[in-house]
Amino acid sequence: MVKPNAGLAGELMSTSEPSSSNDAVRVVVAGTGRIGAMHARDLARRVPGARLVGVFDVHAPAAEAVAAELDVPAVASLDDLLALDADAVAICTSTDTHVDVMVAAAEAGRAIFCEKPISLSLAEVDHGLGAVEAAGVPLQIGFNRRFDPSHRAVAEAVAAGDVGEVAICTITSRDPAPPPVDYIKVSGGLFNDMTIHDFDMARFVTGSEVVEVFAKGAVKVDPAIGEAGDIDTAVVLMTHANGAITTINNSRQATYGYDQRVEVFGSGGMAASDNTHEANTTVATAAGYGRPPLQNFFLERYAQSYLDQWVAFVGAVSTGTPPPVTGADGRAPLVIGLAAKRSLETGAPVLVADVQ
Amino acid sequence: MVKPNAGLAGELMSTSEPSSSNDAVRVVVAGTGRIGAMHARDLARRVPGARLVGVFDVHAPAAEAVAAELDVPAVASLDDLLALDADAVAICTSTDTHVDVMVAAAEAGRAIFCEKPISLSLAEVDHGLGAVEAAGVPLQIGFNRRFDPSHRAVAEAVAAGDVGEVAICTITSRDPAPPPVDYIKVSGGLFNDMTIHDFDMARFVTGSEVVEVFAKGAVKVDPAIGEAGDIDTAVVLMTHANGAITTINNSRQATYGYDQRVEVFGSGGMAASDNTHEANTTVATAAGYGRPPLQNFFLERYAQSYLDQWVAFVGAVSTGTPPPVTGADGRAPLVIGLAAKRSLETGAPVLVADVQ
Amino acid sequence: MVKPNAGLAGELMSTSEPSSSNDAVRVVVAGTGRIGAMHARDLARRVPGARLVGVFDVHAPAAEAVAAELDVPAVASLDDLLALDADAVAICTSTDTHVDVMVAAAEAGRAIFCEKPISLSLAEVDHGLGAVEAAGVPLQIGFNRRFDPSHRAVAEAVAAGDVGEVAICTITSRDPAPPPVDYIKVSGGLFNDMTIHDFDMARFVTGSEVVEVFAKGAVKVDPAIGEAGDIDTAVVLMTHANGAITTINNSRQATYGYDQRVEVFGSGGMAASDNTHEANTTVATAAGYGRPPLQNFFLERYAQSYLDQWVAFVGAVSTGTPPPVTGADGRAPLVIGLAAKRSLETGAPVLVADVQ
Amino acid sequence: MVKPNAGLAGELMSTSEPSSSNDAVRVVVAGTGRIGAMHARDLARRVPGARLVGVFDVHAPAAEAVAAELDVPAVASLDDLLALDADAVAICTSTDTHVDVMVAAAEAGRAIFCEKPISLSLAEVDHGLGAVEAAGVPLQIGFNRRFDPSHRAVAEAVAAGDVGEVAICTITSRDPAPPPVDYIKVSGGLFNDMTIHDFDMARFVTGSEVVEVFAKGAVKVDPAIGEAGDIDTAVVLMTHANGAITTINNSRQATYGYDQRVEVFGSGGMAASDNTHEANTTVATAAGYGRPPLQNFFLERYAQSYLDQWVAFVGAVSTGTPPPVTGADGRAPLVIGLAAKRSLETGAPVLVADVQ
Repeated sequence: MVKPNAGLAGELMSTSEPSSSNDAVRVVVAGTGRIGAMHARDLARRVPGARLVGVFDVHAPAAEAVAAELDVPAVASLDDLLALDADAVAICTSTDTHVDVMVAAAEAGRAIFCEKPISLSLAEVDHGLGAVEAAGVPLQIGFNRRFDPSHRAVAEAVAAGDVGEVAICTITSRDPAPPPVDYIKVSGGLFNDMTIHDFDMARFVTGSEVVEVFAKGAVKVDPAIGEAGDIDTAVVLMTHANGAITTINNSRQATYGYDQRVEVFGSGGMAASDNTHEANTTVATAAGYGRPPLQNFFLERYAQSYLDQWVAFVGAVSTGTPPPVTGADGRAPLVIGLAAKRSLETGAPVLVADVQ
Repeated sequence: MVKPNAGLAGELMSTSEPSSSNDAVRVVVAGTGRIGAMHARDLARRVPGARLVGVFDVHAPAAEAVAAELDVPAVASLDDLLALDADAVAICTSTDTHVDVMVAAAEAGRAIFCEKPISLSLAEVDHGLGAVEAAGVPLQIGFNRRFDPSHRAVAEAVAAGDVGEVAICTITSRDPAPPPVDYIKVSGGLFNDMTIHDFDMARFVTGSEVVEVFAKGAVKVDPAIGEAGDIDTAVVLMTHANGAITTINNSRQATYGYDQRVEVFGSGGMAASDNTHEANTTVATAAGYGRPPLQNFFLERYAQSYLDQWVAFVGAVSTGTPPPVTGADGRAPLVIGLAAKRSLETGAPVLVADVQ
Repeated sequence: MVKPNAGLAGELMSTSEPSSSNDAVRVVVAGTGRIGAMHARDLARRVPGARLVGVFDVHAPAAEAVAAELDVPAVASLDDLLALDADAVAICTSTDTHVDVMVAAAEAGRAIFCEKPISLSLAEVDHGLGAVEAAGVPLQIGFNRRFDPSHRAVAEAVAAGDVGEVAICTITSRDPAPPPVDYIKVSGGLFNDMTIHDFDMARFVTGSEVVEVFAKGAVKVDPAIGEAGDIDTAVVLMTHANGAITTINNSRQATYGYDQRVEVFGSGGMAASDNTHEANTTVATAAGYGRPPLQNFFLERYAQSYLDQWVAFVGAVSTGTPPPVTGADGRAPLVIGLAAKRSLETGAPVLVADVQ
Repeated sequence: MVKPNAGLAGELMSTSEPSSSNDAVRVVVAGTGRIGAMHARDLARRVPGARLVGVFDVHAPAAEAVAAELDVPAVASLDDLLALDADAVAICTSTDTHVDVMVAAAEAGRAIFCEKPISLSLAEVDHGLGAVEAAGVPLQIGFNRRFDPSHRAVAEAVAAGDVGEVAICTITSRDPAPPPVDYIKVSGGLFNDMTIHDFDMARFVTGSEVVEVFAKGAVKVDPAIGEAGDIDTAVVLMTHANGAITTINNSRQATYGYDQRVEVFGSGGMAASDNTHEANTTVATAAGYGRPPLQNFFLERYAQSYLDQWVAFVGAVSTGTPPPVTGADGRAPLVIGLAAKRSLETGAPVLVADVQ
């Protein structure tokens, strides 16, 4: 059994100065779309102990623009990327290619950082993780929210025993606006695309595996999402191995901003993370007290976490310790998502063991 | 179909001066235990337009003490109480006698205020409500939390359309400490004793009936509660007629106080009530910012709501308008509770229609 | 030198049941205007260990209405009131008569509760306090805000050393709306009518006397207040004997409600009280997060403090211990107010010692 | 008369991608200490439309390290720096050299960004501003806090009329820990080193000049600061031209973190900025609710403002519009600081006009 929050220990701090020393961890980035470009910039400029040494994208101009901006080479193929003198590969390509890159990178002996989800196919996931295990290379999955200072402080309070024995966990996770329907169609569905972060969070903050899932969904935001075969609103009730019960509530659209809250309640008390507003300002008039909407969207809200996950990865690679978010941590939420999907279809609770 | 928040309309305000005019609504109180004595005091001293004219309790000294304090007669029997020249009866006796008093009061032509739950038996409930309907007397059920200014403002925001179409409702309801196990044994179980308020709240704030219930429970607070055949921790997921989904989470013990929060989320935004602390004071030191625990317990936290429900009842009786919390509002949460209990036993979701 | 917060020690709690036992402290109320009637009701119904035994008002119908409501005698003169068999007198008459009643009550051997301010004339104050001292009767001044749970928790944190050595105190005290200009004309001016509570609060929470005052005022709310010779906006900077510096800011009109905050900062940290809103409810939409205005006005905001000051007074009288808000506590804010007034007129800081 | 918040108009947003186009504003940085290095990094990496083209420091290794990190030339002298092909100079040298660099940069026709304070000598300030005016080059002073999203939203609410006519402004500004006493000795004193930001903020958020200053100070944090001839605690009361009254309270040490709050109150209501905590997390136990200390220190708390002031400067330079924080804005707080110092020494209020 994995220990979900094994990687929590240790103080992870980001600083503003990347290393240019010879013992820096050299990273190449595969896939320079929005998230890959962000990682490349952080690696080039902001992650201490890291050095960006090359980028690749199937769409060459995308890689070349990032390369020019960051003064690193853009190469023409994945093979070329893996031929560069590097310690690690960041896999930021489209989800359906993650496992192929993972296998190639593992065989090339590179430490691997892989964006979530590893794959929408459990068989593929197992294929990739098998290659990683065979190669014995470090692997970290991009569940960045574990590194958000506010959520992480919840997990730390739980781990420190402040909350006592965990009984109830409540996760609120609502996007400010839905993605284009074209994206929804290829997203793998709400559970694999959006709730997957919350499935991971539930394991992370409670420190216990999920054994049963009951899911309800609805189309409340946009009928076109329903027509595309997906839902835009969901509530999931999960039972953990330790008897704790988690509920997750999701919506593709919260008018007031990006709503991200985690609350863990137990015999000793409660730990809860709250949101950040656009400005920490209140205006009071005869109509009452007003505050601006929430910070919006994830690149802004979770900027620190994206950086801190790299600090953790680089620290693990450079010290030879296991990265904090493991392959098993990447696999588990996919299984929970499959269970949620089956529950939604059948209307009945589903044992996670039945969809493994 | 009842309209759960039909009684919300109108401005209900409590004032500090009871009426002594001849057109006051004259009320007798049956049952002067903790809650009945509180109602008697409010009626005698704080509810404008009301006048307390007599009390009764099967334990005579209890009634006599309240009578002496408030300078009203204590009578020796229920018959004597109903023989007093009064407009209304407050039923605050033990739950298993509610329906008997209700039937007698209805036959005596009295307006009726009945504490929750009406009865633990659905047949009994229907018997009582039938008598009330036959007599054509006004009836209000003691779901006082509907009158709490904070929760009520949530319901009003929903009714005003601020939240848009309701999608998700989250109710957190945790007691500061469990009652004695002896009480638990006769309480009817967590769902009927504690969650019943939350079942009502879900109907009240969403304005929609519950159609399906899925419940999970655990014994996390005290093993003796489990030995008594009950649970002390529960999470309930309910689907409403309008497609909204409500989750309720309960615990018999929150170390940090009496935790009572309601949140309704929809296409237009969110409305949420929060708790009151013992003092509105923050102390900040090198260790961080600290605030005192929550106000504790219901007599204090919900004092205003107890008063305001009387204001609403007296207003309805004196103007001949229907009281805001109806017999149907009293019945529905019992049915939901039965569904929750069956779900807990079977591990499967239960349709409310199947337990009617 | 007085010790301003001497009365803080001890747990003061209000309960809902007044005493009818023979050893209750019997109180008569002189003056049954708005504040006197409130005290009478609290004494008759809500203060444990107290018993209201008579009321008087120069306007007889006012006393008779309260007497009828509370079932106590209304007497025809102050002499008659002091002739009643009572332990204590509550002086709630108009400010210019306080000292006359105080002297008569002291000579009659009654414990005295006196509303603030004792008098607008320092000579009168000294005359009254001299009579009290000569008679050796207990005296408590009605600075109720010391008993507000939130402000009191600030004072307690300071007294407990949580804040370390006090350096800076900030008091925000703004009324929701100005009183009628006719009232302003006889009020003694902003400093004696409104700021007097804040002068007391500064001494109470810092535990140190004020030695210098610098005051600035303005007419910002209503020109008619200026025409009446008063100001409606003020900021006062005060230096304490221990070197701490307090600022008070006042306005006769805060559109968003009754704004009452106290903050004490020192070498160890900070303690601060905050306001209570009409409802503890947030509504979030695309426009941002909204909360209702503040609780409004003092009878509501400070209801608990009015009650708790009686609990303290009754406790002191019945146990023979000194009441917690002394005559010196009543005198000091008047002197500070005189210094503030002189500072406002001269434009220079004024030593408190120079206006004694 | 300057209009303090003239630069507020327009939406200032930072983005993550600096410009490499030919029409970028080319900036050289003079002085690469802590603040200069930060500006250099922001200009090189994060300010859209800006390009860093060279750095200089009297301590050559400091400039060379920054130059190597950012891949720009480090030059050997100020003359060499001004000889580089650039549009603008950032003056981040020691305060006593600001004016010399300013004059040289003005004569070289460069747009100028100058860190605060311009100089501790008013004559020097006027000399520098005269040179700027004679050369007709743009000048912006580094009062970064005007660009903090939370404080700026206060100023915007005031400018939008939400607060009505401004009556009272309260600025709380407390450092987490004092600087070394050696620094204090050359700092120019608390008012010029620390309060200067608050003097600027008062002008910025109220939109009105300061006409009178009354200041009180104390040594509460460290006796060594007193021995060095400075204070570590101060309260300043200022009267504005429009009759509004501002109080500023400062301490060199707040145990709970970097406390930065601004509140403006007026006839229409109140606008207030609040602090950011280390994490947005609450832990509730039987001891109460706890939150972590405040974000600490200014490089972190004000990171966004440092960036946004560059965005404003670059925008102004590239469009030929006046920069938002003018030379007059840089001069005014120095004059207020001189008045505060004289008030502290004399114990009397001081007219700003008397120290011009």
